[in-house]
Amino acid sequence: MSGGKHLAKGSPKPTLPDDGVLRLFSMRFCPYAHRAHLVLNAKNIPYHAIFINLTEKPEWLTEFSPLGKVPALQLPKEEGNPALIESLIVAEYLDEKYPEVPLFPKDPLKKAQDKILIERFSSVVGALYKVFLGSTEAAPDALTEISKGFDIFEKELSSRGTPYFGGDKPGMLDYMIWPWFERTEMLKYLLPEKFELDKERFSKLVAWRDLMINDQAVKGHYLNGETHAKFMKARRDNVHDFDMLV
Amino acid sequence: MSGGKHLAKGSPKPTLPDDGVLRLFSMRFCPYAHRAHLVLNAKNIPYHAIFINLTEKPEWLTEFSPLGKVPALQLPKEEGNPALIESLIVAEYLDEKYPEVPLFPKDPLKKAQDKILIERFSSVVGALYKVFLGSTEAAPDALTEISKGFDIFEKELSSRGTPYFGGDKPGMLDYMIWPWFERTEMLKYLLPEKFELDKERFSKLVAWRDLMINDQAVKGHYLNGETHAKFMKARRDNVHDFDMLV
Repeated sequence: MSGGKHLAKGSPKPTLPDDGVLRLFSMRFCPYAHRAHLVLNAKNIPYHAIFINLTEKPEWLTEFSPLGKVPALQLPKEEGNPALIESLIVAEYLDEKYPEVPLFPKDPLKKAQDKILIERFSSVVGALYKVFLGSTEAAPDALTEISKGFDIFEKELSSRGTPYFGGDKPGMLDYMIWPWFERTEMLKYLLPEKFELDKERFSKLVAWRDLMINDQAVKGHYLNGETHAKFMKARRDNVHDFDMLV
Repeated sequence: MSGGKHLAKGSPKPTLPDDGVLRLFSMRFCPYAHRAHLVLNAKNIPYHAIFINLTEKPEWLTEFSPLGKVPALQLPKEEGNPALIESLIVAEYLDEKYPEVPLFPKDPLKKAQDKILIERFSSVVGALYKVFLGSTEAAPDALTEISKGFDIFEKELSSRGTPYFGGDKPGMLDYMIWPWFERTEMLKYLLPEKFELDKERFSKLVAWRDLMINDQAVKGHYLNGETHAKFMKARRDNVHDFDMLV
């Protein structure tokens, strides 16, 4: 809908087509928006993607996202064409509204336990971004924190005894943490010591990652580590090369 | 179950009684734990409360709450007696597991919109705590931020045209933001200028607050502004007087 180009300040507001199709306001390299793409793909829900320049935001963005963040999901079939924000809220909405391909477990306890793991993953996110963006001095401590965080998920996958957190196929927990695992692949391009997941310590996670890369929903929005690293390297120099792939 | 006293380092682990009743690990003045008390009360779910000293934490706390936070809700009827953490996850679990008194709207869109408002309330929380804990120099900016945050909820209540956010009775949104509205009453004891909600700018919210104070679930865990202020004044001097009410 924005043809992959990131709409910036001064861009005319994209007109709402009369097709009733969901509109996702996104940014190609945003891991939170990535979550919404994955859920939409996994559920085979058609959608228009509108990419947003997050440093020079279009004036009309706050009509859809009051805090100017992505993802925002506009619902053209609903009265007033409202938009939802916050990746986890968008994900759970989609899971409830489009139950044909369920992603969260039906059992309230199992669902709550998966949500707690998603929440606990946020400590890994903080450490990862320190390394992605940060100086190499900060890296050793942050790498330790990342590995400790991954330990929780390795242990969990091991105790579940299934290839995916969701069982025989990816569920909500898999998709909600995937954007950062995909980005972990950029560490071998960003760090001098070419960091990779320890294949013994993280044997289950490594197998899981290899399966996830071949999942249809993941493939639909996948970028390799080298591409993620290229965007991040520019960002380290304060260059936001949103349209790098267009 | 802890008799209102906050269990500290060295306290023996409370034994699990054979009654199948939920156990809530809480701290009497914690607004996040407050949310869990409200949901349990609103749904008439019996529970044991175990209060925790959060500065000198009991060694066994991490068995129930891996990050040592409250609330944590232990579920003795479930296999392995698991515990859930994170106030919003606990609240939504209870709403799904005990649907007799529903708190979230059934409609996925309305539910998502209420969750977004709960999320947006967190900017108010940050500003409130600046004032609760902070120097009077920080106060004017933070008070402006609080009022701007409250504007969103005033407008929302006005557009809903109902006494509560949940309609004719309080729903999840009402209970999730209430702990901080209850604590806003302490501002008249903490600030020299005796801050109160502007009765014209916030006419709907003032009427809502007056109704909420008389709600049974709220009454079951209510403390007045003076009591909250007393706890907070001590905390400003780095004294955590957890057992103030025991």
